[in-house]
Parts: sequence; C-alpha cells; structure tokens
Amino acid sequence: MNHVPVAIIGAGPAGLTLAHLLHLQGIESVVFESRSRRDVEETVRAGILEQGTLNLMRETGVGERMEREADHDEAIDIAINNENIRIPLTELTGHKVAIYPQHEYLKDFIAKRIEDGGELLFETTVDSVEDFEGDARENKARITYTGVDGATQQLAADYVIAADGSNSPYRKIITDGGGIRARHEYPYAWFGILVEAPKTQKELIYATHPEGFALISTRTDTVQRYYLQCNPDDTPEMWSDDRIWEQLHLRADSPGITVSEGRIFDKAVLRFRSAVTEPMQKGRLFLAGDAAHTVPPTGAKGLNLAVADVSVLAPALTRAIKRNDTGLLDDYTRLAVPRIWKAQHFSYWMSSMLHAVPGEDHFATQRRFAELRSVLESEAGQRYLAEQYVGRDLPRFDY
Amino acid sequence: MNHVPVAIIGAGPAGLTLAHLLHLQGIESVVFESRSRRDVEETVRAGILEQGTLNLMRETGVGERMEREADHDEAIDIAINNENIRIPLTELTGHKVAIYPQHEYLKDFIAKRIEDGGELLFETTVDSVEDFEGDARENKARITYTGVDGATQQLAADYVIAADGSNSPYRKIITDGGGIRARHEYPYAWFGILVEAPKTQKELIYATHPEGFALISTRTDTVQRYYLQCNPDDTPEMWSDDRIWEQLHLRADSPGITVSEGRIFDKAVLRFRSAVTEPMQKGRLFLAGDAAHTVPPTGAKGLNLAVADVSVLAPALTRAIKRNDTGLLDDYTRLAVPRIWKAQHFSYWMSSMLHAVPGEDHFATQRRFAELRSVLESEAGQRYLAEQYVGRDLPRFDY
Repeated sequence: MNHVPVAIIGAGPAGLTLAHLLHLQGIESVVFESRSRRDVEETVRAGILEQGTLNLMRETGVGERMEREADHDEAIDIAINNENIRIPLTELTGHKVAIYPQHEYLKDFIAKRIEDGGELLFETTVDSVEDFEGDARENKARITYTGVDGATQQLAADYVIAADGSNSPYRKIITDGGGIRARHEYPYAWFGILVEAPKTQKELIYATHPEGFALISTRTDTVQRYYLQCNPDDTPEMWSDDRIWEQLHLRADSPGITVSEGRIFDKAVLRFRSAVTEPMQKGRLFLAGDAAHTVPPTGAKGLNLAVADVSVLAPALTRAIKRNDTGLLDDYTRLAVPRIWKAQHFSYWMSSMLHAVPGEDHFATQRRFAELRSVLESEAGQRYLAEQYVGRDLPRFDY
Repeated sequence: MNHVPVAIIGAGPAGLTLAHLLHLQGIESVVFESRSRRDVEETVRAGILEQGTLNLMRETGVGERMEREADHDEAIDIAINNENIRIPLTELTGHKVAIYPQHEYLKDFIAKRIEDGGELLFETTVDSVEDFEGDARENKARITYTGVDGATQQLAADYVIAADGSNSPYRKIITDGGGIRARHEYPYAWFGILVEAPKTQKELIYATHPEGFALISTRTDTVQRYYLQCNPDDTPEMWSDDRIWEQLHLRADSPGITVSEGRIFDKAVLRFRSAVTEPMQKGRLFLAGDAAHTVPPTGAKGLNLAVADVSVLAPALTRAIKRNDTGLLDDYTRLAVPRIWKAQHFSYWMSSMLHAVPGEDHFATQRRFAELRSVLESEAGQRYLAEQYVGRDLPRFDY
C-alpha cells in the first residue's frame, strides 16, 4: 500500500490551502476530490477575503492574480430605509477586504498545486477511512478510494483531514463518539442573482428595509451579484425578473444610487444555517472548514474560517510529522473553536440586525433599527463592526 | 376654578424633574401624587445615574447630597464564568455614572420643590382629565382630583403631563386614538435582595454563568443590593437564604472576589418587560417617563429616560407658554422617541447577552459567550458598550 503523511479529503478552501501550506514545509499530501476540476472551478460562489486570508495568499505565493483582479474594498455601505451610511473599514481598522469569488480562490490554489507537482485526485471518491486511532508511528490510517478509472485502491496515511464540506460523512464519527453538533436555523434565506450589468457602485451595500434585506455586491465590471432576502422555501420560479427589480430598487436604492439592471443569467436560493461541531478531531482524523462548521452567508466568513482552521492544522501537522510533537495537534479544537464561535456570532448578529423576521412585531423592528442606529452613530460601534468584518489576524504558530 | 399653566400627574423622576425645570423658568405647575410622601421616599428602588442626569442635578441646584453620598463609578466589571473583565467607563468615554437609588433622587427633588414653594399634592388622586384638545388659549384642560381630605376639586390647566408610571391610565387615551403600544416580554426576571454587609467591591459586577445572571451592586458601605436571575413566576418563598448565597457565590465569585454576606432584610422579584408608546402626546396631554415606556432593569435606564423626556418637554412647554410657540411641543414624540428605542435596544442587548434563557440550546449559549468575548476583547467593543452605559448627552434646547 502506498503511504502519504497527510490525506486530505476535499479540494475546497480548507483542503487546498492546507495542502499548499504543508507543501511549503516539504510535507507531502494527497487531496481527494469527488467532483471534476471543471465542476470545482466553475461552480460560482461568492467570496469576501479577510485581511488575514489576503496576507496568507500573498505570503505563500498564490496571491498574484487576486492582487490584480480582485476589488480591494476600503468601505461598505449600510443602507437603512434607503439612507446609505458609509463604514470606512480601512480608516477604522487599517485593513481592507477583497471581493474575490471562492471559485477564483480555488482556481489559484489548484493551479499552484499542479505547478508544484502535488497530488490532487479529481473525480475520486473516498469510500472509507479506517484505523485512524492511536499513534501514527505504530498504526497507519487506511483510505479506500475509487478513482476516475473506476478502480478501487488503498492508501496509508499518518493523518487524515476531512475537508469535504458541510455534508461530510466523517463528522458522524465525531458526533457518534460523544461530540456535539450545535445548530441554528434562520427564518429567512437569500435569493441570489447574477446580472450582466455595470457596477451599481464600487463598494458593497447592505440594505435593510421593512420589505427585507438586500445586498448589492459585485463580481466584475460587467457582472454583478445581488441578493434579496426571501423565504427559505422560495423557489427561483417565484421570483420573476420584474419582481426582482422592483424589490431591489425598493430596498436598496438611495439618493444618488440606483441599482444597475441587466440580463439576469443565474437565480438561486441560499440557505441560512449555522452549525458547529465540537470537538473537531478524533484520533488522527481532523475536520476542517465547512465539514466542521457552517455560517450563514452574511459577512462571508465561511472561506476565511476554513483558512483559519488550516492555519492551526498546518503547523500542528508539521510539528507532529517532522518532530513527533503532537502538542499543537492535540490542541487543535481548543485553538480553533473560539474564532469559529466569534464568526458565528458575527454572522448571526449581522443577519439579525439586517433582516426582517417574517411577521416580526413593532418592538422587534424598532429595536433592530435602534441597534443599527446605535452602531452606526458611534465611531466605536462602527469600528467594532468593521473589526469583525475585515477579520481578526490568522492564528500564527511556528512550524 | 383655579388655573395653572402645567398640571403634572405623578411625583416620580419625570414629574418632579419637570416641575423643577419649569420652576427655574418661572413657570408654575401643580404635581399630583396619589401616594404619601413617606411612601414615595421610602420605596427602595435601585438607580444608576447617567452622566447627563448627574449634570442636570448639578446644574439645576439639586446635586449637592448626590455629590456627597453617591458612589461615582469609573468602571464596571463583567464576569464571564467567574472571570472578571473590567470595563473602564471613564477611560473609554470620559464620563462617570453614579450609584444613587431612585428614591434618594426623589427625596432631593421633593425637598427642593418644597423649599421652592412649588405645589406638590401627596395622597391626591386625579379622577379625570378632560378638554385637553385644541389651542391652550381658547380651551383649558379640566382636572378633577380628590385630595387627602377626601374633597373633590377641579383645576384648569393649559397642559397636562401624565408622569404617573407604568400603569398610567392616560396611555389608553393615546392607544385608543390610534397610537401604538409595542411590548416585549423576557423569559426571566431578577430576584433582588438587600443585605447588611460590607461592599463586595467598589464597582458593580455583572456576572454571567451557565446557572444564570447575577448583579453585585451596592447601596452604602453597610447595605448591598444583589440580584439573581430567576424565573418570572418565582416567589420570594422559593429563595431560601441558603439558596441565595449558594447561587450568588456560584455565579459571581471570582479569583480574589467573594460576594460579601450578611443579614438579608428584603427580597423581591423584579419583572422584565419592555414597552414603548407612540405617539407620546395627544392634544395638550403628554406622557413622560414610565407612563410612556418601560425598560428592563439591566442597564438602569428607566430614571435616565424619564429625565431625557422632560429635557425635551421643559423647554417645549416653556416656549409654548411664554412665547406661544408650540413647535417644539408638537415635535415632542419625534424628538424623544429615538433615544427611547436606543435605550430599549441597550437594555435588551445587555439582558440578552448576560442572561441564560431557560432551556437555551448549545448554539445559543456559545453564541452569547462569543458575543461577550467579541465585545470585551475589543477596545471598540468595550467603548461601544461603555458609551451606552454612561448614556448619551441629554437633549438640549433653548428655553
């Protein structure tokens, strides 16, 4: 049986970033991905990169295209009942964010992985992971997988990382073993569209209105991404183009700003849910990214949290493999979880403050607006929000 | 029928402060209070005076005893699972708060009112208020009241202020006329005790713990005021002294700090509710203080909001009476309400962040703690909280 120090299931942000960080330390890994490269690269996903994620891309040699193509935003707007209030992120925090879709992030890491000669097996399904308990020196994990050719093979690994997204079957190993899966469902969702249109404005507009939330976001100079709060069980058929434009203008237009229109070429409903699995490890199996935790899209923390997870895992695995020091690896959950809960809070808070809960009473509406005003009228309030929006520094550990 | 420019129903913080502010402008008023002076002065109520309220007392000559006797606090502690984190209010905001019980505030204003020769009728019940619509020059309001001698009399007034607390019958006039009464009930209450004991520490401790909230507050060097989160339908009989001390230590002790014990001489359950009435006026009848709005005790905004209301009403009435300019008075609700909603939000936020909702799930608990940590780990977060705790400047209008 072939052997690799680290087997990584899933070529999403967590898996690919981890493989890259390990490669930089000279540690070999195999990345298994059940989908095709084309499918991974062409599934359009939104993305806002925190300052720490931007820095990691730059520092590890994957940031060149992002630097060139991404919109680097120094502010966001929050619109309350069609009145825009600017939050100067960079002025308040010294940091920026970049609008860079998740699939573009993945493209960069896939290209780098291939350039580096790292193993990255697309259209390859992991069938089982066994023997991941105990000491890596005495006992190798056994991964059974079926490749693109239909042949089933096995691979031995010291460590296994389940980075295979929010439906990861490996999470069950942890919850069956006494772990906790904390969840929260939200009474709303986002109806997202892609539009051939010029930018409404350079910076994002988070709009709250009695009719509900809207987000005016951008992808390129000619393609825009807009979202409208909808019911979780809405279907694209329920949203005609006319209804979409009417609601976008109603919720997000403001003096001097009109949402730019164009041909709508994609409609989709995004679910809102929060989940956190604890612990994020059992034996030598570790969860990372969405496999461990899900955040609602408000605030766009998902990719950034995945990067934060592997910023702990990469040095932790390196120490374990190179120096047989498993201290950091044993502490993985304890080190990763506080940031995850803070991101859950931020996503929940932004969501709750900006969305009208269907049927909410007068008290709830007025309190929400008073909260928004309290935050936005105070420099401290704006900075407290901005700090969380641009994100905390990534965990830094010596390798 | 005797005539007075302003009739004020209720000798609470709103009524007495308004009568005093009007007196300073040379405007006569009559204050009706159904309870006895002794009852008003001896009903023990907690109180934290915002910076603006302190300033008003000083500037209007009622602050002398408060300056001498009140604890002026430059910080509060928030304890998370028995770990105290200090919020340096004054360092963060430049402002202080004073721990000064509400009945002491009332004593000072009653003494001043009597010294000034203003009319203040205790044990006098207002039976009805009529004819408060239309122009004050053409039509006087008629107040029918029954005094301490049992005799029913009438008084004509240009303006009537209902400042008679959260059960004010005059609110109904407004809600019957199309006004809104927004409410929120909380799934917890406070069990409050008074104790003969030395101070636990100089500054307040807001403690959150899986067992629930506790507040370590102080009245004097020898009498302390402690609160424990309880169920809204708890009765004092359900809380033995042993249970009280066990829960106070469990929730609020921290390294180096032990809640000081002593003889408990008062036990009471405080309800948690929020309510806002809009508008706060109809014709020449105006609601002020708790008659218009109720806040839960967390954050102690009740008295301060009453003072803010009358900081609008006093100049507004003065302009109307002296210069026949009713512009400010017409705008009373619009000017007073934003601050009320922000205070509602602050009280709701502090309450929600610090109290365990009975039966709350793992997500809710962890999110709450993550919010507290997010606020307390950030200078901006602490300052955002501190600004609201010490309170915004009072409304200032020319008389």
